[in-house]
Amino acid sequence: MKQALHQLTIATTGKGLTDLTRPIIEWTATQGIATGLLTVWCRHTSASLTVQENADPTVRADILRFFEALVPEATGRYAHEDEGPDDMPAHLRTMLTQTQISIPVAAGRPVFGTWQALYLFEHRRHPNRREIVLHLFGA
Amino acid sequence: MKQALHQLTIATTGKGLTDLTRPIIEWTATQGIATGLLTVWCRHTSASLTVQENADPTVRADILRFFEALVPEATGRYAHEDEGPDDMPAHLRTMLTQTQISIPVAAGRPVFGTWQALYLFEHRRHPNRREIVLHLFGA
Amino acid sequence: MKQALHQLTIATTGKGLTDLTRPIIEWTATQGIATGLLTVWCRHTSASLTVQENADPTVRADILRFFEALVPEATGRYAHEDEGPDDMPAHLRTMLTQTQISIPVAAGRPVFGTWQALYLFEHRRHPNRREIVLHLFGA
Repeated sequence: MKQALHQLTIATTGKGLTDLTRPIIEWTATQGIATGLLTVWCRHTSASLTVQENADPTVRADILRFFEALVPEATGRYAHEDEGPDDMPAHLRTMLTQTQISIPVAAGRPVFGTWQALYLFEHRRHPNRREIVLHLFGA
Repeated sequence: MKQALHQLTIATTGKGLTDLTRPIIEWTATQGIATGLLTVWCRHTSASLTVQENADPTVRADILRFFEALVPEATGRYAHEDEGPDDMPAHLRTMLTQTQISIPVAAGRPVFGTWQALYLFEHRRHPNRREIVLHLFGA
Repeated sequence: MKQALHQLTIATTGKGLTDLTRPIIEWTATQGIATGLLTVWCRHTSASLTVQENADPTVRADILRFFEALVPEATGRYAHEDEGPDDMPAHLRTMLTQTQISIPVAAGRPVFGTWQALYLFEHRRHPNRREIVLHLFGA
């Protein structure tokens, strides 16, 4: 049994989903671990993680629209708006999705289903650099 | 320290919650691991996992009603409706719940609380066969 | 590679967020594990876990208001109200947040970002004693 830690820094371009599946699979493949568990951690409270459909780009557009409606940006609605109207909605959208996702690894590869991708979900309007920690252990 | 991988295939009968607690506990009990961590992964984006109350069936009925209202099915509301009006709501309901749940194991048993069950939450109207990956490690 | 299990019992005072970051960091620091994975499990279905902003208390107030509006308490709205109007909303709010969070550990410390705290989110009106299981493994 051994383990490895790694950090990805992801440049986002404002609100939207960035696919992390490929960098995660590629890093895992080089660790010499056939069977194990991979954990992905997002070190932020205004960006989050989600596993979603990887094929049709309209799914991502629907996701953005849905979260705009479910957690509206509106000046005066929230007490916390230090950084603008997208500040508190970013925290709430993070809370409704994931900060951490762990996936089993088999044959050196995370066991994603055919239609699954792991996305970083940026909730702020402006570009950010987001730190994603990867932890892998196994044999 | 050792680890084990397993796959459950669960036949769902349309929308609803299928209790996975017993098969998960039973598989864990046969792995010869007293202390460790069990991870459950759902390989789909239109079905998900949740830990919920295990006693009163009206809880499950309330859950279904709540998600119908929170993420409505409505033709024309979503851009992605390739597979019908339950397609995109299934993705969004997945996103608001869990694709992965990891639970500590003590004395050979996941440490569920008295009232906790781990459910597979089917979001599509029609029956499906859902692949659930289990990963256990420990000693 | 070694592992450790621990249970925290947290007294809540009704609805609200209790910061678990410090007890989690302190327990982790005493386990003699530099690199690893820490898992936090909440043994209840009417309290949950979330990673949120740790600085401005108005964030926590906004979170409470948001969940009151998203999952309203209202007599007659839910079939399951054995324990009062906050019973079923507590289950639904748990379902929309987390029962489990796992975080990588580096240099003996969970890799929380600068602004991240891990909170226990009590959803019931009355005080409760909540059992939180910690599992740590690593080397």
